Amino acid sequence: MMQNASARHRAAERTGIWFVGARGSVASTATLGLAAIAEGQAPPTGCVTAQEPFTSAGLPEFTDLVVGGHDISSVTMTKRAECLVETGMVPPRLFAAAHDALERADAEVRPGYDPHGGPGGESQQASAERLAADITSFRDRHALARVVVVDLSSTEPPVDLAPEHDDPAALLTALTDPARAVLPASSVSAYAAILAGAAYAAFTPSAGMGLPALAQLARERGIPVAGQDGKTGQTWLRTVMAPAFAARNLKVLSWAGTNLLGGGDGATLADPEAVRSKLSSKTRGLTALTGSDITPLHIDNVPDLGDIKVAWDHVHVEGFLGSRLTLQTTWSAHDSMLAAPLVLDLARLLALAHAAGISGPVPELGFFFKDPWGSDVHDAAEQSRALEGWVRSAAAQVQP
Amino acid sequence: MMQNASARHRAAERTGIWFVGARGSVASTATLGLAAIAEGQAPPTGCVTAQEPFTSAGLPEFTDLVVGGHDISSVTMTKRAECLVETGMVPPRLFAAAHDALERADAEVRPGYDPHGGPGGESQQASAERLAADITSFRDRHALARVVVVDLSSTEPPVDLAPEHDDPAALLTALTDPARAVLPASSVSAYAAILAGAAYAAFTPSAGMGLPALAQLARERGIPVAGQDGKTGQTWLRTVMAPAFAARNLKVLSWAGTNLLGGGDGATLADPEAVRSKLSSKTRGLTALTGSDITPLHIDNVPDLGDIKVAWDHVHVEGFLGSRLTLQTTWSAHDSMLAAPLVLDLARLLALAHAAGISGPVPELGFFFKDPWGSDVHDAAEQSRALEGWVRSAAAQVQP
Amino acid sequence: MMQNASARHRAAERTGIWFVGARGSVASTATLGLAAIAEGQAPPTGCVTAQEPFTSAGLPEFTDLVVGGHDISSVTMTKRAECLVETGMVPPRLFAAAHDALERADAEVRPGYDPHGGPGGESQQASAERLAADITSFRDRHALARVVVVDLSSTEPPVDLAPEHDDPAALLTALTDPARAVLPASSVSAYAAILAGAAYAAFTPSAGMGLPALAQLARERGIPVAGQDGKTGQTWLRTVMAPAFAARNLKVLSWAGTNLLGGGDGATLADPEAVRSKLSSKTRGLTALTGSDITPLHIDNVPDLGDIKVAWDHVHVEGFLGSRLTLQTTWSAHDSMLAAPLVLDLARLLALAHAAGISGPVPELGFFFKDPWGSDVHDAAEQSRALEGWVRSAAAQVQP
Amino acid sequence: MMQNASARHRAAERTGIWFVGARGSVASTATLGLAAIAEGQAPPTGCVTAQEPFTSAGLPEFTDLVVGGHDISSVTMTKRAECLVETGMVPPRLFAAAHDALERADAEVRPGYDPHGGPGGESQQASAERLAADITSFRDRHALARVVVVDLSSTEPPVDLAPEHDDPAALLTALTDPARAVLPASSVSAYAAILAGAAYAAFTPSAGMGLPALAQLARERGIPVAGQDGKTGQTWLRTVMAPAFAARNLKVLSWAGTNLLGGGDGATLADPEAVRSKLSSKTRGLTALTGSDITPLHIDNVPDLGDIKVAWDHVHVEGFLGSRLTLQTTWSAHDSMLAAPLVLDLARLLALAHAAGISGPVPELGFFFKDPWGSDVHDAAEQSRALEGWVRSAAAQVQP
Ligand SMILES: NC(=O)c1ccc[n+]([C@@H]2O[C@H](COP(=O)([O-])OP(=O)(O)OC[C@H]3O[C@@H](n4cnc5c(N)ncnc54)[C@H](O)[C@@H]3O)[C@@H](O)[C@H]2O)c1
Ligand SMILES: NC(=O)c1ccc[n+]([C@@H]2O[C@H](COP(=O)([O-])OP(=O)(O)OC[C@H]3O[C@@H](n4cnc5c(N)ncnc54)[C@H](O)[C@@H]3O)[C@@H](O)[C@H]2O)c1
Ligand SMILES: NC(=O)c1ccc[n+]([C@@H]2O[C@H](COP(=O)([O-])OP(=O)(O)OC[C@H]3O[C@@H](n4cnc5c(N)ncnc54)[C@H](O)[C@@H]3O)[C@@H](O)[C@H]2O)c1
Ligand SMILES: NC(=O)c1ccc[n+]([C@@H]2O[C@H](COP(=O)([O-])OP(=O)(O)OC[C@H]3O[C@@H](n4cnc5c(N)ncnc54)[C@H](O)[C@@H]3O)[C@@H](O)[C@H]2O)c1
Ligand code: NA
Ligand code: NA
Repeated sequence: MMQNASARHRAAERTGIWFVGARGSVASTATLGLAAIAEGQAPPTGCVTAQEPFTSAGLPEFTDLVVGGHDISSVTMTKRAECLVETGMVPPRLFAAAHDALERADAEVRPGYDPHGGPGGESQQASAERLAADITSFRDRHALARVVVVDLSSTEPPVDLAPEHDDPAALLTALTDPARAVLPASSVSAYAAILAGAAYAAFTPSAGMGLPALAQLARERGIPVAGQDGKTGQTWLRTVMAPAFAARNLKVLSWAGTNLLGGGDGATLADPEAVRSKLSSKTRGLTALTGSDITPLHIDNVPDLGDIKVAWDHVHVEGFLGSRLTLQTTWSAHDSMLAAPLVLDLARLLALAHAAGISGPVPELGFFFKDPWGSDVHDAAEQSRALEGWVRSAAAQVQP
Repeated sequence: MMQNASARHRAAERTGIWFVGARGSVASTATLGLAAIAEGQAPPTGCVTAQEPFTSAGLPEFTDLVVGGHDISSVTMTKRAECLVETGMVPPRLFAAAHDALERADAEVRPGYDPHGGPGGESQQASAERLAADITSFRDRHALARVVVVDLSSTEPPVDLAPEHDDPAALLTALTDPARAVLPASSVSAYAAILAGAAYAAFTPSAGMGLPALAQLARERGIPVAGQDGKTGQTWLRTVMAPAFAARNLKVLSWAGTNLLGGGDGATLADPEAVRSKLSSKTRGLTALTGSDITPLHIDNVPDLGDIKVAWDHVHVEGFLGSRLTLQTTWSAHDSMLAAPLVLDLARLLALAHAAGISGPVPELGFFFKDPWGSDVHDAAEQSRALEGWVRSAAAQVQP
Repeated sequence: MMQNASARHRAAERTGIWFVGARGSVASTATLGLAAIAEGQAPPTGCVTAQEPFTSAGLPEFTDLVVGGHDISSVTMTKRAECLVETGMVPPRLFAAAHDALERADAEVRPGYDPHGGPGGESQQASAERLAADITSFRDRHALARVVVVDLSSTEPPVDLAPEHDDPAALLTALTDPARAVLPASSVSAYAAILAGAAYAAFTPSAGMGLPALAQLARERGIPVAGQDGKTGQTWLRTVMAPAFAARNLKVLSWAGTNLLGGGDGATLADPEAVRSKLSSKTRGLTALTGSDITPLHIDNVPDLGDIKVAWDHVHVEGFLGSRLTLQTTWSAHDSMLAAPLVLDLARLLALAHAAGISGPVPELGFFFKDPWGSDVHDAAEQSRALEGWVRSAAAQVQP
Repeated sequence: MMQNASARHRAAERTGIWFVGARGSVASTATLGLAAIAEGQAPPTGCVTAQEPFTSAGLPEFTDLVVGGHDISSVTMTKRAECLVETGMVPPRLFAAAHDALERADAEVRPGYDPHGGPGGESQQASAERLAADITSFRDRHALARVVVVDLSSTEPPVDLAPEHDDPAALLTALTDPARAVLPASSVSAYAAILAGAAYAAFTPSAGMGLPALAQLARERGIPVAGQDGKTGQTWLRTVMAPAFAARNLKVLSWAGTNLLGGGDGATLADPEAVRSKLSSKTRGLTALTGSDITPLHIDNVPDLGDIKVAWDHVHVEGFLGSRLTLQTTWSAHDSMLAAPLVLDLARLLALAHAAGISGPVPELGFFFKDPWGSDVHDAAEQSRALEGWVRSAAAQVQP
């Protein structure tokens, strides 16, 4: 759906990243890391786009990226990053190097939409317009070619679907009613991105732009969007291995798993409602890839682990003549360190998509997500090839 | 290197499999399994070629395959299979179903070339001719369209290279000297395959057809060959995961591993000389894929494990901002159950290659091997694609 | 509480084992194994009492033990054992050897108390008397010195406590009311053991003899009892390791775990109610030993695993200067093969306790249980010592 | 062998710890940690003696301990500790708190005995006297009641035994010959401890005081000694679990293991000679506890792991009716953080032993060692009980 866009040649210009959940662990890590990389203090390890063919695709440089965002917390990014130093995740040296950049970014953080924000009396339309104004003001003040909104806010419980979620016109009407809150918070932010004409990525499993009415609006208004739920650790590993078993004609009987994590995400997911969104996006791809639906999965809040995520998987497989084999994996990583470079990748790639005039869900960005919008492909190797093909063609579109 | 072959339309005809090491664990399992599948007693789980696009490629059917081979042991395939029942690897039901087929195959086993076979006084040329005669007699008696030789004999120590190993003419001369034994046993068998005009696969890490002079002879005499060292378990898993880390721009710092196994292969590899061949073919691909040469690896003979291979890997990876992540994997499988279906695949695919008039190393069969001949590709997903592309094109060649 | 019993010298006489749940996996395995050991077809590996100091304690010999029991299933022990052969757990050879003994034991199986057994109109007192009559008839017909009842029936959900559960007199009254079912099924069986004057062991986490009123009756009527919930795998391992960390003054921060299993027990525990009993008895000891209450634990029904139980634990520990260490364990075993020898041990040891005139809960048998009656000790090494001390002293009581 | 010593009441006085290898990782960590604990900046987690019954045994307080030592490196303890901060092992806060104490301790470091120390022309007797003089000068300058020497220097290769190693008189003669170097470096240090009248602990697997002639001299001259090779991680875990399997009458068939580590110790053990000492002390206890000699074990130098030691064990066990179970463990810890608190424990306990007039090997200190001197007990739980019994009785001896 590429248009012969007037946006051409513009992907490499100054670009804004607007984090919803800007003061969270992932956003703070991404901001700190961006500064460290831009200043040459750290190599861009973990950034997919720091390799060929992406480096020749005319993406915005790390030095071209400017950070701002929304949050409902008053703990600053700098303070958050300092905590991450204390847990041993972030090296003190890099925190020191990025200190001023964190302060600058945090000065760009505006109050987000708080679903528990008290009476208010404001309609969701008004709220979204306020959020959109924050984004356009950010774009204008920094003379940015474009802004990419990345949702990194706390995971919400699954949403009860309403008729308005499927019907753009009905939705727009409902939004103006101050007595109603037809959208979950993540979708208010997504709608604000549409209003601001900003590209959008959903790194969380929350509804966000995933509601059909919003996706349709995005398509109509020329906004490229990508989602959903960052595929960073255990799920990524599963989508690497499951296709390999299939290629060997080995039959997965069951794939059981457990996740242990602390930190902000651990605390959020200790809520049995919130965790449902996450569990369902985590198992969908696996069932698609293996054909087995015996995939028990748990996420436990283990506060003493801090930002470390430990994931154990047990795969039970049938082979030749009914023989059985088992594969166990244990993955241990700082969760935000996995997510942050992919977030920077998404910002760079959606800037290209926007410059190329692409609108609506970009299926080739499925590489980054547990539950890819616009695509049924979960195989990590296949997604990697599709992504490389896409970037070459989008780059050709922009820089012919 | 496909020739417009007179062999056309012939791939699906009756085909012989000639195992070097026919009475070993893998060969006996493959023979038993072939019978069970051919008789509809077991599905072809674990056979790559039992899936699309291979099922439409006109490969010989399982019912078209006839087994014979060489060995230097007097323990029959039936007896060997019975032991595998006792260890719990093979279900009694399938052994019963395959009993007669095992007896028939074992009746086709002829004495192999024994490097410690006493004075003899026979030149290696004479030995190879004897082995070749066994193969052609087998082909003629069973009216086979062709024979594929698969080396499944015990792993040999690495060979000290001699000038004759690089020079076909010098080699042919040396072979006629009864006082010399210029070739290791596996290469005598490989040379016999050439003399018999049989396709050839090296499932072991032994020298086999890997000596340059023999590879050149194979090419000249129109024999398709594939090798080397079956990629069935831990190494396969590594070549699945390592490219995935690379696609994420995550930097593998070290990849340490240990293998525990018993059985015949465990006993052979307890010899520090023999194990050198195996260790070197196991790490070559990993270093190529990761760029790291910190890859300590061990193979331990643990007789109480029988045919079970347990492999543990510890991968230490650098991510964003110098952060570290670890992945551990534990793989536990009956080794011969992994190898046997791939051996049947190779026989079917090399029959196609032969029918298509392909000669010399077939790089696209690299999917099956730790140390692929004619190819530098180790990435399992990439090999899978290449294999599928190849089978389509070879099939088109044979059945236009 | 040892009495100068007239039972002296009698421990080694013929003894009955009466399994509640006689046709289940553990009971069938124990019966098969007992026959195999008694007939010299298998060594008593896994039986604690087959070692010193137990072998000198005058326990009943394996050849002195006779099996009967209650069940509500009509699938015979022989049939059940045959299934266990098919899954690969039991060697065909031993099944053949034990075939007749299984048939004989199954002929001693009587209908159990079925809580969903339809209208009936029978009071629980009447039911328990019927069960007790089965036990005494078994004892008389086989001229047994005594019978030990071992509860191996399906795990029940936790019981809502009623006043009668604490008050023997009130309980006895309530039992006679045909309109009430004051006891869960496991406790009806426990009460039947009391009526029959049989020693009793609770290998399940169900209420059983654990209700205070029943425990008191047992004590009054001279019945030695032991429980609760067999400590065979993951929990045993935890009670081995946790005290070792404490001895090193290393501080357990969290101890997370997951269990995967299939089989009858897996299916039962897939019920969220039933699993509550099990989860609570599994974590109680751990919290006592480590002081940490961050002990998330799951039990997943994975039918393809059959009787194999796979348990993964992740232990996060604080050491010197706040440093962190992790220990992961993966345990994989045939669950019934772990339980069965301990069940035979319990029968032998409770026979001794009965002969020694011990009544009520025997704390020193806590070694065998997740939630030991009459004891707060969970440390496996300490329990082992206590058990050895007890057997010496009980033996001296019986054979002075 | 306790004497009614005039040393009574003296255990709690100011005590010196003299580290051989004072600038190594373990010694620097112990020194830093001692300062942090003494100043109340960190709790004594990981110190066995910080718990009952040790806290009532009149051991020297942490504030009573003064550090000095020998080394052949010129990199100071402070610098070494700084490196440990950079690898993330030591928190910056504690380094800052301990900075001055590290400087003070490093000022007490004297040149050790360097076996490759050039021509010299000095006899080993003269060298040992020089080392002893360093120790006595340290004791006198700080007015210490006693000094405990703890060998923490790099692991040496196994020693070729000479007749002098068994015969004190012959040894004393050989030591005076400037042309001979009859003792390895670790034993020169051990002899120096004897000359200085200092208690001695061998935390390394090097020969040290383990040569019979030196052990005899220690006994004669009233020096309590303890060794050998600190039991801190994988080996400790094995001696916790192996006795538990035995108590269950479960039969260990094989126990395979791999260790990955970097740091100074990793580099030393990359030498195939040096690693032999370590491997042999690591497997001795395991074989004794399990009866199995199938215990393949590896130690790999993986520099990127720094001071982290990762150890994987695979235990294959036979249970009831020949069934098999497996236990795998993965241990990941900062090696020096495990060792350092035990080193402080040993200093405190040997001070008590010295005050109690105990001489020669103290078998009850076997708890701390892979290869305990004077004892065949490897069972960690049994060693823990023995240690507690010993400290009570030694304390009673000193403070009646
Ligand atoms: N590897 C990974 O870290 C990973 C992978 C996939 C998805 N995710 C998702 O990314 C998200 C962020 O993870 P995190 O670890 O940074 O979590 P976090 O709890 O540290 O941060 C979430 C932030 O969102 C803010 N927030 C909450 N509600 C908001 C609202 N209505 N408007 C604006 N801000 C709001 C919070 O105040 C907080 O600062 C989570 O949804 C998580 O599930 C993370
Ligand atoms: N997953 C796997 O099982 C796997 C994977 C890769 C490679 N391999 C290789 O496959 C080979 C076979 O493995 P296996 O487990 O069946 O071993 P095995 O020891 O059971 O069988 C080897 C057989 O080769 C025979 N043999 C030895 N020297 C011979 C000679 N000179 N001529 C003819 N026969 C000879 C032996 O008598 C024996 O019957 C080994 O080299 C092994 O390394 C196996
Ligand atoms: N390692 C172990 O196997 C282990 C460890 C601890 C506890 N346990 C407990 O042992 C018990 C038995 O385990 P299993 O694997 O043999 O289970 P199973 O499901 O195979 O057998 C249970 C048997 O109990 C019978 N039963 C159910 N209700 C009954 C009743 N009211 N009266 C009489 N019989 C009844 C069933 O018909 C079945 O035959 C379970 O409670 C389990 O939790 C087992
Ligand atoms: N968990 C553990 O850390 C652990 C457990 C058991 C045993 N150990 C043993 O403790 C010892 C110390 O380990 P580390 O990690 O501190 O090693 P390290 O390499 O960091 O330190 C060894 C120190 O010894 C010094 N040294 C070498 N030769 C010497 C000599 N002749 N005289 C005096 N000093 C000398 C070196 O210069 C170095 O400073 C090793 O032998 C190790 O095997 C450690
Ligand atoms: Na999708
Ligand atoms: Na208790």
